[in-house]
Amino acid sequence: MSASHPRAPGLPRGDSLLPAWIKETVRAILDPIVRLALAFHVTANTVTVIGLVITVVAAILIGSGGLLAGALILMGGSLLDAVDGALARATGGGTAFGGFLDSTLDRASEAIVYLAIAAYYLHEPAPTWPVLAAFIALAGSFMVSYSRARAEGIGITAAVGIAPRTERLVLIIAGLGLAGLGIGPALIAALWIIAALTVTTTAQRIWHVWRLTAPTRG
Amino acid sequence: MSASHPRAPGLPRGDSLLPAWIKETVRAILDPIVRLALAFHVTANTVTVIGLVITVVAAILIGSGGLLAGALILMGGSLLDAVDGALARATGGGTAFGGFLDSTLDRASEAIVYLAIAAYYLHEPAPTWPVLAAFIALAGSFMVSYSRARAEGIGITAAVGIAPRTERLVLIIAGLGLAGLGIGPALIAALWIIAALTVTTTAQRIWHVWRLTAPTRG
Repeated sequence: MSASHPRAPGLPRGDSLLPAWIKETVRAILDPIVRLALAFHVTANTVTVIGLVITVVAAILIGSGGLLAGALILMGGSLLDAVDGALARATGGGTAFGGFLDSTLDRASEAIVYLAIAAYYLHEPAPTWPVLAAFIALAGSFMVSYSRARAEGIGITAAVGIAPRTERLVLIIAGLGLAGLGIGPALIAALWIIAALTVTTTAQRIWHVWRLTAPTRG
Repeated sequence: MSASHPRAPGLPRGDSLLPAWIKETVRAILDPIVRLALAFHVTANTVTVIGLVITVVAAILIGSGGLLAGALILMGGSLLDAVDGALARATGGGTAFGGFLDSTLDRASEAIVYLAIAAYYLHEPAPTWPVLAAFIALAGSFMVSYSRARAEGIGITAAVGIAPRTERLVLIIAGLGLAGLGIGPALIAALWIIAALTVTTTAQRIWHVWRLTAPTRG
């Protein structure tokens, strides 16, 4: 849900790898949902929490072997993910708490999805490498978000890097969906790609902060 | 290594659960190391990176079954962890990059230790619950750090909570050491305690930020 709530001023998001037409289509789907939420006075924070609940439902399905169903529910959840931000903008710009809750529960959602994937593989034969891949993908995703949040704490924008959350989510949903359709290696490949991209992005961000703070180090 | 580098002004650390005499003893051990580092012009950031390398060595030992050896090396690494901060203070107060690098590599260290513990259990019989406990302990530890860093990004100090990093580290080293001495359940218990404490702390921090931002929500 991090793509949604407005950020502090002067903190642009990393460039997205998704084509513009996908974003336009998503926007067209979201518009009626946002209007409905506005009509029923549902707040952005409520939508954020509902998004987490949907992720938990998807995780339970994934953990018990329902990869395709889990992928479809996660997809629905990520649409909702964009609703909270649109809702916050429509009702006057969003609050600092809204942004905080949104990104904190985003991290929780990611953790829950990878935990579910690990639980799934632990019931399969030869779990070692897939579970370690899920572990590294989770750790790497957290490092990407943490390094950015920590940099913002010292006043530096570190939204650089090649693995924004939306792209990670698309990869993992695609991997889950394909594995659910019988192409098991797709999920393992998605995990390793996310692991590699996030570890690289973390290194990029450390390097970025190092460069930007060079003048103050004298 | 987050206990070490000086924080931005006005950002006090959470109260520690460790007794003062332990901290005094550690300080007495550290003093000669800090002097040595100063004499050889070793920078605080170099010490931070050496700390990560030591963690990787400990992780390789843990992953291949050397739990006791891993615990002892981790203990040495955490002493070094306090050296970088002392060194930064001794050489003029530490830089913004030093603090950023320190806490970012702290997260990487935590991830590497839990990954190693997961790898260890994946070679043991009945890995499911221990691996999931390691997963939740990692995710919870990250959530604790992330929620704090993200709160600092919006100008709020969220160092509240019952699971500071030093205490997590003591728990995990004790669990590893006892498991290495043959008391296997100690490590599993340590993982579940850390999982419970960190998830609770994250909830506390979200609640804390919610309370503190209440006036601006009107």
